[in-house]
Amino acid sequence: MNSRRDFLQKFSLGIGAAAFIAGAENVSAAAPKIADAPKADKQLRVALMGLGGYANIVARGMKECKTAKLVGLVTGTPSKIPEWKQKYGIEDKNIYNYENLQEIKNNPDIDLVYVITPNSLHHKHVLQVAAAGKHVICEKPVADNAKQAREMIAACEKAGVKFYIGYRLHFEPHTRELIRMREAGEFGKIMHVNNYAGFTIGDPTQWRLKKNLAGGGAMMDVGVYSTNGARYCTGEEPVWVTAQESKTDPVKFKDVDETVTFQLGFPSGIIANCGCTYNFNHAERLHVMGQKGWAEMNPAFGYGPIRGNTHKGAIDAPDVNHQAYQMDGIADAILNGKPDPNVTGHEGLKDMLVIDAVYESLRKNGAKVFIKQ
Amino acid sequence: MNSRRDFLQKFSLGIGAAAFIAGAENVSAAAPKIADAPKADKQLRVALMGLGGYANIVARGMKECKTAKLVGLVTGTPSKIPEWKQKYGIEDKNIYNYENLQEIKNNPDIDLVYVITPNSLHHKHVLQVAAAGKHVICEKPVADNAKQAREMIAACEKAGVKFYIGYRLHFEPHTRELIRMREAGEFGKIMHVNNYAGFTIGDPTQWRLKKNLAGGGAMMDVGVYSTNGARYCTGEEPVWVTAQESKTDPVKFKDVDETVTFQLGFPSGIIANCGCTYNFNHAERLHVMGQKGWAEMNPAFGYGPIRGNTHKGAIDAPDVNHQAYQMDGIADAILNGKPDPNVTGHEGLKDMLVIDAVYESLRKNGAKVFIKQ
Repeated sequence: MNSRRDFLQKFSLGIGAAAFIAGAENVSAAAPKIADAPKADKQLRVALMGLGGYANIVARGMKECKTAKLVGLVTGTPSKIPEWKQKYGIEDKNIYNYENLQEIKNNPDIDLVYVITPNSLHHKHVLQVAAAGKHVICEKPVADNAKQAREMIAACEKAGVKFYIGYRLHFEPHTRELIRMREAGEFGKIMHVNNYAGFTIGDPTQWRLKKNLAGGGAMMDVGVYSTNGARYCTGEEPVWVTAQESKTDPVKFKDVDETVTFQLGFPSGIIANCGCTYNFNHAERLHVMGQKGWAEMNPAFGYGPIRGNTHKGAIDAPDVNHQAYQMDGIADAILNGKPDPNVTGHEGLKDMLVIDAVYESLRKNGAKVFIKQ
Repeated sequence: MNSRRDFLQKFSLGIGAAAFIAGAENVSAAAPKIADAPKADKQLRVALMGLGGYANIVARGMKECKTAKLVGLVTGTPSKIPEWKQKYGIEDKNIYNYENLQEIKNNPDIDLVYVITPNSLHHKHVLQVAAAGKHVICEKPVADNAKQAREMIAACEKAGVKFYIGYRLHFEPHTRELIRMREAGEFGKIMHVNNYAGFTIGDPTQWRLKKNLAGGGAMMDVGVYSTNGARYCTGEEPVWVTAQESKTDPVKFKDVDETVTFQLGFPSGIIANCGCTYNFNHAERLHVMGQKGWAEMNPAFGYGPIRGNTHKGAIDAPDVNHQAYQMDGIADAILNGKPDPNVTGHEGLKDMLVIDAVYESLRKNGAKVFIKQ
């Protein structure tokens, strides 16, 4: 517990985030260690760009990877480099800053750059990585808006590099079982989705509370879980959005949205009743109801362990390190020519279309906004 | 199980309603029997008006009452009378029809009439009971709209009779404990309420699916649980409403709403994300989140058993017969001059103001509608 508390304080996520990442370390201890498995003959060599709180979580998780390997860094804070070198054995030749980033194209020892910079920098940084000819993973949300997301997809296609979003839950076994059950028709016709994501955010000075760095508030950062969750629970794309906002702390959240509820209307008639917040805990859940069955995930979106119940009983799936599974899954697709997991830039764009519509509805006092795919 | 299935078929509630009333009989068997307690010296003598499915549930529950007693009937279906007389020992002098109803004013052996007729008849029937000088309980929803509810309140006040709504959950121990915890501040500042009510409705020919008898569909009949639940979870009155509708079965639900999601904005900034349906099961739940704690009821609104979990653990409360507790609670208030439970006509009006606003928002394509109290 001490190490987690230290970690939270160090990265200013605040005590609220403890709920979100609850147990992440315990999971590593209890789950079958990927690290124990032999490493793959060929590994995807990854550089992390942006060494904030989440980059630390990814780096720690990647110690368990067998197909992906952390080999490089991009950081604007030289003082962070010694600790990272020591912890992860990074070679100097694989360490870049934001001025010499373009030189990464000449480095044959880096295959992919994982962009974990503040949201509003994703667009610029993904374009830079694509221009350097490297595959790219971009942390969610993909960008500030759908227009940027489309430009990022186009840039990666033009450069011939793969473009993924850090949608780790698509590699998480409980979530995968939920999706499998839905695809297999075990819930019957889906009738409703209800979900909520969020936590009480800590340090009021962090970038997530600054619009020019975060692009938005809770909706942008955690509402994307609700949005993505509603989409993987239905297997459909929403056609309309309505949204409502509440700001109970106008000082802390002067710059960004604090609490947003929103509804997604799907072609089959499903209405997903969603929400997200930066201002309370125990909010995180996902509930899907069909004519033949149902599932509830709670916790649904955190770093684990994820827990799910269905009409058949508890979802029996292993607790894994989400970040390790994500990185190995993406590495496997790239190196072994497997079909792309459902975390491509196009998936990021689909969520961004919803987020754009949510903000448009809020600007229009909750009016129904139709989404053009 | 057979008796329940027979019961469901008999009253055309359909298999879906089984989820709603699941365990109601088992509760009667397991709970401490009120029937075993001595009857009160003075009892409130009740006549039921409208002998449909719910009147049967009330009558059966009232066998456990000690302060209320079923003594009379008002029915337009003479063929039902013999069975009711036999089952409940009703005397001929206490049996009325809709033509001679006004004569009930000359009957000193009836204190109160419980109106359990189709929703759109509540207004007319409550005015008739008030004119006869009898106290009245009206089944929820109080009326078709707030205007009618205000007229009903005024008529009862003018006649000097008590006017209650059949909000049985306000007498249900798990729900009362939730409300007690909220009032005691155990959840801290309430930040969010999420709830859903409903079930798959059966017989497509029943009055609940006819607008001229039901006043509306799922929103009117079960959305009132979501509305009332959001109000007792917050202790506030909503100031705005937004609403969305889905109709996946336009044949069965040609006349009334099938599935409605709606949001209530409260003065403190809480947004309650609510919904209701007539077209799927396992929908019923209520979740309240505060800055210090939380509670979830699931099932939340059915006839029992109600189940609740909180940050302190499972709610430890007895499973009781809701209808018996409601009738004894109201009888106790009337006979013993106790403060009115929170189920007055004014409470019904407050929910009706929300329901009016939901329908107005639906007519305005989801626009935000402000409520004037």
